[in-house]
Amino acid sequence: MKPLDKNRIYLDHNATTEPRFSAKKAVKKALNYWGNPSSIHQDASKAKNLLWSARQNLSHFLNCHPLEIIFTSGASESNNYAIKGLFQVQNKTRNELIISSVEHPSVLYTADFLSQKGFKVHKIPVSKQGFLDEAFFEKHLSEKTLLVSIMSANNETGVIFPIEKWVKKIHEKGALFHSDMVQFLGKRKVDLKKLEIDLASFSAHKCYSLQGCGILYCKKGIMLESLIHGGPQERQRRAGTENLTGIVAFGSVAKEGDIILKKTQKLKSLRDNMEKYILSHLKKVEIIGHKALRLDNTSCLCISGIHGETLLMNLDLKGISVSVGSACGSGKLKSSSVLTAMGFTQKEAFSSIRISLGIETTKEQIEYFQKALVESVNRLRNLE
Amino acid sequence: MKPLDKNRIYLDHNATTEPRFSAKKAVKKALNYWGNPSSIHQDASKAKNLLWSARQNLSHFLNCHPLEIIFTSGASESNNYAIKGLFQVQNKTRNELIISSVEHPSVLYTADFLSQKGFKVHKIPVSKQGFLDEAFFEKHLSEKTLLVSIMSANNETGVIFPIEKWVKKIHEKGALFHSDMVQFLGKRKVDLKKLEIDLASFSAHKCYSLQGCGILYCKKGIMLESLIHGGPQERQRRAGTENLTGIVAFGSVAKEGDIILKKTQKLKSLRDNMEKYILSHLKKVEIIGHKALRLDNTSCLCISGIHGETLLMNLDLKGISVSVGSACGSGKLKSSSVLTAMGFTQKEAFSSIRISLGIETTKEQIEYFQKALVESVNRLRNLE
Repeated sequence: MKPLDKNRIYLDHNATTEPRFSAKKAVKKALNYWGNPSSIHQDASKAKNLLWSARQNLSHFLNCHPLEIIFTSGASESNNYAIKGLFQVQNKTRNELIISSVEHPSVLYTADFLSQKGFKVHKIPVSKQGFLDEAFFEKHLSEKTLLVSIMSANNETGVIFPIEKWVKKIHEKGALFHSDMVQFLGKRKVDLKKLEIDLASFSAHKCYSLQGCGILYCKKGIMLESLIHGGPQERQRRAGTENLTGIVAFGSVAKEGDIILKKTQKLKSLRDNMEKYILSHLKKVEIIGHKALRLDNTSCLCISGIHGETLLMNLDLKGISVSVGSACGSGKLKSSSVLTAMGFTQKEAFSSIRISLGIETTKEQIEYFQKALVESVNRLRNLE
Repeated sequence: MKPLDKNRIYLDHNATTEPRFSAKKAVKKALNYWGNPSSIHQDASKAKNLLWSARQNLSHFLNCHPLEIIFTSGASESNNYAIKGLFQVQNKTRNELIISSVEHPSVLYTADFLSQKGFKVHKIPVSKQGFLDEAFFEKHLSEKTLLVSIMSANNETGVIFPIEKWVKKIHEKGALFHSDMVQFLGKRKVDLKKLEIDLASFSAHKCYSLQGCGILYCKKGIMLESLIHGGPQERQRRAGTENLTGIVAFGSVAKEGDIILKKTQKLKSLRDNMEKYILSHLKKVEIIGHKALRLDNTSCLCISGIHGETLLMNLDLKGISVSVGSACGSGKLKSSSVLTAMGFTQKEAFSSIRISLGIETTKEQIEYFQKALVESVNRLRNLE
């Protein structure tokens, strides 16, 4: 089997990203320090030092205290842990959860699980334009609210929610605030100290590092019941021998955080020009969330008369990787829960594709892609 | 920082093992196939193929169906998932858990958690010789038992429990059987089909692969509530993008399963000769569990008049890595819960060290170690 073809055009960065050279290098290094960080001999202390160094790099990147970082197996675990962990801690007066209706499945299904357990869950509607229904939110935010969980940027549309605006209101009601910040990391500056939220989830592989590694940021003083009970790792908050390879790789990428953020600056014009080209060459195309603030790398298109998955396969044959719905929901014929939650019909949701650029995406790649897209759409439309 | 010193003698394999060459090679390969296995374009299908191939290798090694394997972040997660997942599924008549008193913390603390939630937990006593109190077990096994969780081999003493003997009894009562098989894997042949247990936990890094990757074997038809809710990965049983690097490495090691098992055959004589040497050169040394069936690589010594941690540090300075208590419990001054559960005093537990050999351990290393041990013990005893 040959490595991934370098000539292919990968535009599915919201699903996963290629680990940076520094991450790959760090993996190779970590493989030489395979001691168990919990042991106390020299073979272990080297692993422990690597772990600490990665923790420091990441805390610097996120602007939080190193001990506010809990390493997990990924953002799905982080989201589950934050939400279930808080609702497991006894609280007699507060038993309500507020989430947006466009959260990642790991938040949505965790909320469903809590709902089955008797907790009250409010899902805030999101408009077709991508705006959260703030009136609904304020109406349901109360002294009964234990936690509000709203993502900072949506994985499918790229729409950014102004979470910093809501922190004070949530805290005034005595509730806590968790944010799934997976798509934000590496695309916008994350400053947890400034943001003042209580809990936040991050994924390494969405930010140019490895799959199987994530972070739950847990502000000092917040008590959670462990999701994984056992050994004393992560200050007794998350049991299990640490994924040293994944953590060390993530730490090395964090060290390059500024470079990554700088490289993302070019994405806006690349993406905007691409959207302009597509709109001027194709009729009946809607750019979902274009009136809202969006991540610079994401474009979610609803292309009338087209089946997204057929288009994806056409582009795939032309050497281009894009996505329909969220990656986690792909592989089976189910329309995007995000788009239907926003009020799009099943048919519209099935007609959408997501293009997500990465820091190594070039102007030439986008030019090739947009031509291929227009060509494929015209051909498919003529077939119907 | 230099790589781990090849001249050091590593005798802490029950804490973690060095990834085999094939695992390191597989990691480097997997880094080139970084697509998200859940996506449906070609960049992803290569990742998906690698994942499936690893699953097949592992199912062959464990003798189970590939789809009975659920990939997790490690055995702590697997143990939590198996036990909590089963007790979350509503069962009105069965609400009791039976475990042994010498289980790994990820089983013990999960049991404590369930106990706080109102479930009844019975802990089967284990004698100083390492034998499980079968009369107690049979007395408490009843129509109320939902699950029995007994490890196949103890991490600290190496004592093997004859779990195959108990499967039928447990099933006759209509209960399910989970086993933490972490220490068994790679040391004894695992044959899940023959064993007929319902759930089993495995860890990659205890079997010459990477930290941060594990398996929950879940026999076809067993229903569990997910520990991590979200995306449809692992047939909707464990959400979150798969740890491709870790899984692919584990799969490559599984392919060498027979070689690993063959290499372990030499460990018994190495270990037995070492124990003979130590007993003949030191007084007041007890080999814990020596009357029971033990793993061939493990030796747990209670050395009267010695503080285990001081001895560990002395040996560390001589270039030897051993352990006190379980690795997960190391790093803090707390005596081994396994040994105290077996009836040893706190003082005796503090006087113990664990030596665990690996497939690359040589006769020369053991000869150097045993001399160093005798020398250190004599010196420390004379100081007191």
